[in-house]
Amino acid sequence: MTTTAADRTLALLEGQVGRALPEVETPVAVIDLDRLETNLAELQSYADAHGIAMWPHTKTHKSQELGSRQLELGAAGLTVAKTGEAQIFQEAGAPRILVHYPPVGPDKWERLADVAAAGAELTIAVDGLAPAEGLSRVFARRGLRAELLVELDVGLHRTGQTTTAGAVALAEQLERLPAVEPAGLSCYPGHCRRDDPELSDELRAVDELLRETREAFDRAGLRSDRVSGGSTPTQHLTHTTCVNELRAGTYALLDRNQAEDDRCALWVEVTVVSDAVAEQVVVDGGSKTFTSDPHPAGGHGSVVGLADARFIRMNEEHGYVDVSALERRPTVGDHLQIVPNHACGCMNLHDGVLAVRAGVVDHVIRVDARGLIR
Amino acid sequence: MTTTAADRTLALLEGQVGRALPEVETPVAVIDLDRLETNLAELQSYADAHGIAMWPHTKTHKSQELGSRQLELGAAGLTVAKTGEAQIFQEAGAPRILVHYPPVGPDKWERLADVAAAGAELTIAVDGLAPAEGLSRVFARRGLRAELLVELDVGLHRTGQTTTAGAVALAEQLERLPAVEPAGLSCYPGHCRRDDPELSDELRAVDELLRETREAFDRAGLRSDRVSGGSTPTQHLTHTTCVNELRAGTYALLDRNQAEDDRCALWVEVTVVSDAVAEQVVVDGGSKTFTSDPHPAGGHGSVVGLADARFIRMNEEHGYVDVSALERRPTVGDHLQIVPNHACGCMNLHDGVLAVRAGVVDHVIRVDARGLIR
Repeated sequence: MTTTAADRTLALLEGQVGRALPEVETPVAVIDLDRLETNLAELQSYADAHGIAMWPHTKTHKSQELGSRQLELGAAGLTVAKTGEAQIFQEAGAPRILVHYPPVGPDKWERLADVAAAGAELTIAVDGLAPAEGLSRVFARRGLRAELLVELDVGLHRTGQTTTAGAVALAEQLERLPAVEPAGLSCYPGHCRRDDPELSDELRAVDELLRETREAFDRAGLRSDRVSGGSTPTQHLTHTTCVNELRAGTYALLDRNQAEDDRCALWVEVTVVSDAVAEQVVVDGGSKTFTSDPHPAGGHGSVVGLADARFIRMNEEHGYVDVSALERRPTVGDHLQIVPNHACGCMNLHDGVLAVRAGVVDHVIRVDARGLIR
Repeated sequence: MTTTAADRTLALLEGQVGRALPEVETPVAVIDLDRLETNLAELQSYADAHGIAMWPHTKTHKSQELGSRQLELGAAGLTVAKTGEAQIFQEAGAPRILVHYPPVGPDKWERLADVAAAGAELTIAVDGLAPAEGLSRVFARRGLRAELLVELDVGLHRTGQTTTAGAVALAEQLERLPAVEPAGLSCYPGHCRRDDPELSDELRAVDELLRETREAFDRAGLRSDRVSGGSTPTQHLTHTTCVNELRAGTYALLDRNQAEDDRCALWVEVTVVSDAVAEQVVVDGGSKTFTSDPHPAGGHGSVVGLADARFIRMNEEHGYVDVSALERRPTVGDHLQIVPNHACGCMNLHDGVLAVRAGVVDHVIRVDARGLIR
């Protein structure tokens, strides 16, 4: 094992502990610990109040530290998208892990079996027979078991069985496989957007389809006690549906797509590096620091405290901020704080993040599952 | 130093050496060694034929192996965007390094001084006095020296002095600083796009501005022997301008934005993981694998060999491929090969890449400078 860029970056970040934010090297991702704790506690309280089990999606932060905190606060288990993430959060002590992604191929089945063998209770969401058959074969050979959820397409049209009849037929096929047990339904209402005035109507349609399918499962003698759903935009409406397991992810950090700046726990600290071109300044973060993930209103992030500054354009390492509407133009060397459009995409670019409290770097949060290929 | 995701990923990739591509775990970035060599050799030959010095921009590949190969083929030096990249390519043996980014802040000046002290001849492009003053102070104290290029804005309106007079005035200020020596001009004609029919006209305007500024430098008794420019879209027109140092980067790999699939050395190998929704398949690569970097024609990549398949939508780990126009629909478990929109953004998501020859994994190319924060 030789030194990687991740090792170098983490060493550099460790050297920033104790610095006040204006003194840290940039560009660097920052998490405010108080806001993080508020975000985590608030949704956990909501779920507790409504008897909904929290299964936070770790794809947002990819950090063992944050996953462990979510479990301490009362999460029933953690959700992951990748086999490697399951491994990393099992190692962090997660007792139950939901892999909400179809596992395809023998390497992934063996690795999921490793996670189960190490002691995590595994649940895997599937929308077809082939991944489940492979998984069943490997788990049966190794004397392991897993629960399955049948994914239902409730409107995003990405993955999931598209009809109640299809979901029942798949669940009946899954019931005949050894070592795996279909335990209910899963959905991702990713088409229901916070900015859509019809949000609750849309979610009602999702709920009708879920209930219809759950009743069809009951009639067919299939387990339907687990109904997994949720997304950050719809999270606070979960109790109006039959979903009893909530997989929200972005709620932990929030971002420009989801919330106002003062609720976002994540931002990127950048430095103005050029003011040579009129009416703009260039900062040292671009698409390799923020992601190119879009925002419906355009732009690449929100400049904290400078509502009239517009982050209008990016190249890989350059951020163009239109400052023509500002009374005082930032100068070379000034720091800006920019909330990214999409926290999940941004976190996945960084091997580590500075955890701050009251503007001082407290420690480094490692992004333990960054960029895993599997 | 504990295990990072980079270590895990690299170990997993090493385990794939010797496999044929259809057997590798996905999603994974792949570089075809023969195409890479063709791309590298072809532009080096062009530069050699025209007496232009190659200074390949390493931001595209971020790999010591590929940077070293560019030097072996005849590059005069390597270009970097970040201080950490300068360090990594100095360690790989680069004799000359151009930092084409304004270095702002004492940490970066010290680190650049470390690179110079380790033996690399450093050049730094600046568009303002402040970064150069800091650099000069640190380099003078440590008994080091560096050349500077004055960046001229030739039309992208990102960084760079916007007038000839401004460039001359800055160079005159730089001349008075100790330990640094202004040696000429630099520009980035990033507004000249390959798909623009007026490309050569636009580049002619760039050249006129460069010549005018170079003559003004001469009249003022300033060095103007180095004129650094280039970008992949304009690379083969460099000889029609006064640019004598070429910083192209993407040429090494090429991508959907720059070339047809059969010239692209980089692609992502993905697996179909769902076919539940009609007329589409979902593959196991999304924005965390490809980047969200856009393409003027829309879409997120080109599906190799399947011109009628359209990669229309992405989430973080899901790629939606419209296969409605295909005669044979790919099935779950099939591999697809997808050329990303933007090679540089894609490479920066991966800690390592499978180097293949004739479809078999030969070795792992490490992305040594991935995601450095500085």
